[in-house]
Amino acid sequence: MNGTGQDLAGIGILLIQTPDPTLAKLYFRYAAMNAGKSTALLQAAHNYEERGMKVQLFTAALDDRAGKGVISSRLGIAREADTFGPNTAFVGEHFGADTACLLIDEAQFLTTVQVRQLHRLAHVDGVPVLCYGLRSDFRAEAFEGSAALLTLADDIEEMKSICACGRKATLNLRVDARGQRVSEGEQVVIGGNERYRAVCPSCFYQDDALGPSAAPGLFG
Amino acid sequence: MNGTGQDLAGIGILLIQTPDPTLAKLYFRYAAMNAGKSTALLQAAHNYEERGMKVQLFTAALDDRAGKGVISSRLGIAREADTFGPNTAFVGEHFGADTACLLIDEAQFLTTVQVRQLHRLAHVDGVPVLCYGLRSDFRAEAFEGSAALLTLADDIEEMKSICACGRKATLNLRVDARGQRVSEGEQVVIGGNERYRAVCPSCFYQDDALGPSAAPGLFG
Amino acid sequence: MNGTGQDLAGIGILLIQTPDPTLAKLYFRYAAMNAGKSTALLQAAHNYEERGMKVQLFTAALDDRAGKGVISSRLGIAREADTFGPNTAFVGEHFGADTACLLIDEAQFLTTVQVRQLHRLAHVDGVPVLCYGLRSDFRAEAFEGSAALLTLADDIEEMKSICACGRKATLNLRVDARGQRVSEGEQVVIGGNERYRAVCPSCFYQDDALGPSAAPGLFG
Amino acid sequence: MNGTGQDLAGIGILLIQTPDPTLAKLYFRYAAMNAGKSTALLQAAHNYEERGMKVQLFTAALDDRAGKGVISSRLGIAREADTFGPNTAFVGEHFGADTACLLIDEAQFLTTVQVRQLHRLAHVDGVPVLCYGLRSDFRAEAFEGSAALLTLADDIEEMKSICACGRKATLNLRVDARGQRVSEGEQVVIGGNERYRAVCPSCFYQDDALGPSAAPGLFG
Repeated sequence: MNGTGQDLAGIGILLIQTPDPTLAKLYFRYAAMNAGKSTALLQAAHNYEERGMKVQLFTAALDDRAGKGVISSRLGIAREADTFGPNTAFVGEHFGADTACLLIDEAQFLTTVQVRQLHRLAHVDGVPVLCYGLRSDFRAEAFEGSAALLTLADDIEEMKSICACGRKATLNLRVDARGQRVSEGEQVVIGGNERYRAVCPSCFYQDDALGPSAAPGLFG
Repeated sequence: MNGTGQDLAGIGILLIQTPDPTLAKLYFRYAAMNAGKSTALLQAAHNYEERGMKVQLFTAALDDRAGKGVISSRLGIAREADTFGPNTAFVGEHFGADTACLLIDEAQFLTTVQVRQLHRLAHVDGVPVLCYGLRSDFRAEAFEGSAALLTLADDIEEMKSICACGRKATLNLRVDARGQRVSEGEQVVIGGNERYRAVCPSCFYQDDALGPSAAPGLFG
Repeated sequence: MNGTGQDLAGIGILLIQTPDPTLAKLYFRYAAMNAGKSTALLQAAHNYEERGMKVQLFTAALDDRAGKGVISSRLGIAREADTFGPNTAFVGEHFGADTACLLIDEAQFLTTVQVRQLHRLAHVDGVPVLCYGLRSDFRAEAFEGSAALLTLADDIEEMKSICACGRKATLNLRVDARGQRVSEGEQVVIGGNERYRAVCPSCFYQDDALGPSAAPGLFG
Repeated sequence: MNGTGQDLAGIGILLIQTPDPTLAKLYFRYAAMNAGKSTALLQAAHNYEERGMKVQLFTAALDDRAGKGVISSRLGIAREADTFGPNTAFVGEHFGADTACLLIDEAQFLTTVQVRQLHRLAHVDGVPVLCYGLRSDFRAEAFEGSAALLTLADDIEEMKSICACGRKATLNLRVDARGQRVSEGEQVVIGGNERYRAVCPSCFYQDDALGPSAAPGLFG
């Protein structure tokens, strides 16, 4: 065990201060809408801090659900966070040696370059990185950040949520102001979670009468 | 899709009211101390309720961390819950047809008989059951409820927490009032989380000079 | 339980003959080189057939490791398979009602359209689909098929293999005929496994002196 | 990276010869009957050996399916193995410094003491241990070795198999010579796999008319 350490609680357990590139990993926890991603991120941050470790939180700059620079959970917990945009550089020299962990919400909005930087941050600089994000958009198409994280992350875990029919939700669909399903439009619509439903594949295909020839766009 | 349903949000997704024995499962999420089990349970309950489904929460009667009948998270969220003791019967006739899910905290304190009842509740009565609990005690020995859940649950997931050294914590150790490690005593000591440390196996064995012949009791 | 069935072994278990869209899933098992993907596919096929179910096997047409149309394992087992190219259509009408499962090797070579067809095949036509493939190429960049499977699959599982240093291998690197590492070239080189090494991230970055600014291409 | 190493293939990757207690883990892969456990074990052994590492294989002495001291797969592969009985000691001094990994089949027959020895072997002596075994017996009751492995293993993974009805099999039932289900008897009957069926919970409970009061023994 390398690193200068401090004895916690007098029971012979050392806190390693030096980042360890052979230990750190890039983690990705993905889910459909409303699975509890932000809650899980805030819990993980709490777990680190309770052990005396310093964490750094990020969320996407475009997310204004809770105001710029806030990670907020539907359970009622919220906390300030740095924001990242497409030009943010996640490189080692930006993070002090005392950063025990990076936690990134809305990670679907990372670029492929940023995900590669984060992979390198874990494995060259020794800083663990925990990313939380949506897997696919309302057309079941990939988000750039999520596709890159699914390709590179050392540890991938699905956070389960349920469809209204009781099955596991793995996809999202978008509805308009009157609750009607929308099949075209921008990948991202600012305006809150009420425009999305997390659904299982059976429900996703339920109002789709076009058959398998429609595969490319799912909705034709 | 069976069951009488109600159309949610006018988008053709039916809420199944009738429990479905071919869909329901017995889930077990296990972890060492302070991983965020209660937070995850409260989030799962919220996810069900947000979709208009009714849940029923339980915690162990012996747990007085937050007062009898309360599930409380270190993140600051708390909620009332029914309590179970060793004689509580988890049988179908106790739960209304409108119970979409049972969520059980401190599930390590279930008996083997109760875990079999819960398995049957999922697969015969069609009620999903989500259990959250510790995997092993301060001597790395099994809790009865957890051993039974690990044997029967349809879906097992580890909730990860970290040791002070940065590795994954999988074990717990107990300390006395002065912070000294304790290797003997009752399996359960009421008195709060401050008496336990979640540790990785390397740290668990660190102050153990007895060698492999000590395997049965880990501390000799 | 729907479907006309046949009683297996006189013990009251019915074999469902009718595909069940609420049960079928799209599975993806991914790994680095030489983890045992083809062995696992052949075992899964055997498991289905042993229960009297018919499976259909596919491998990529471009793979000539074992001759066109053969899935072969490094353990010494081999078996004929249909081949797929980029224009193969995985649509319901191509598969008889008696096809219990599709098993696809070298699934990294599927197109995004094909992965969407397979997702629909599972959830609209009720045919389970098991895909096995590499996650990333020798530059740690995504394969099209794998990125699409990681985005849509209902069940994702990593098949673990080890790096020569003992850690988990998650990436692949390519070497030339003299064993020197190659950092440029086509994504696919026909010519066998001896040109690839499955490595952990630490070893992947070991001979890379370019630092974090090189993130986009990993090798600069 | 510690250890004297040898350069594999001239590409700068060192083979660590010295066991590393901070890297080694105790793994448990569990399944119902006929999931492919032995195949997976033989594949893992092959993966290690292909990288120039030495492995040691064990199977239970009481298993005479393929002759004493043989691990054999239903795919047609077989290989000699040491056997273990309840008195075998899995302690560090029995294994040379060149043992890269222990692979143990029929791990449900390990004792709790042996599982604790294997946990220590991984974390004190630095030898990774991969165990493969059944989770529960024909009454859905725990095997001693599996309960202990599920309690201590650092990495638990289910190997999926299918019930004849198409669902995931998680339980086993035993049939007599005429194919009739058996609900009483010894935990282990030597005589081959044809006496067991891997089934899903729905099929397991299908011919059980006793209701929830029968929970303790499942069959009354």
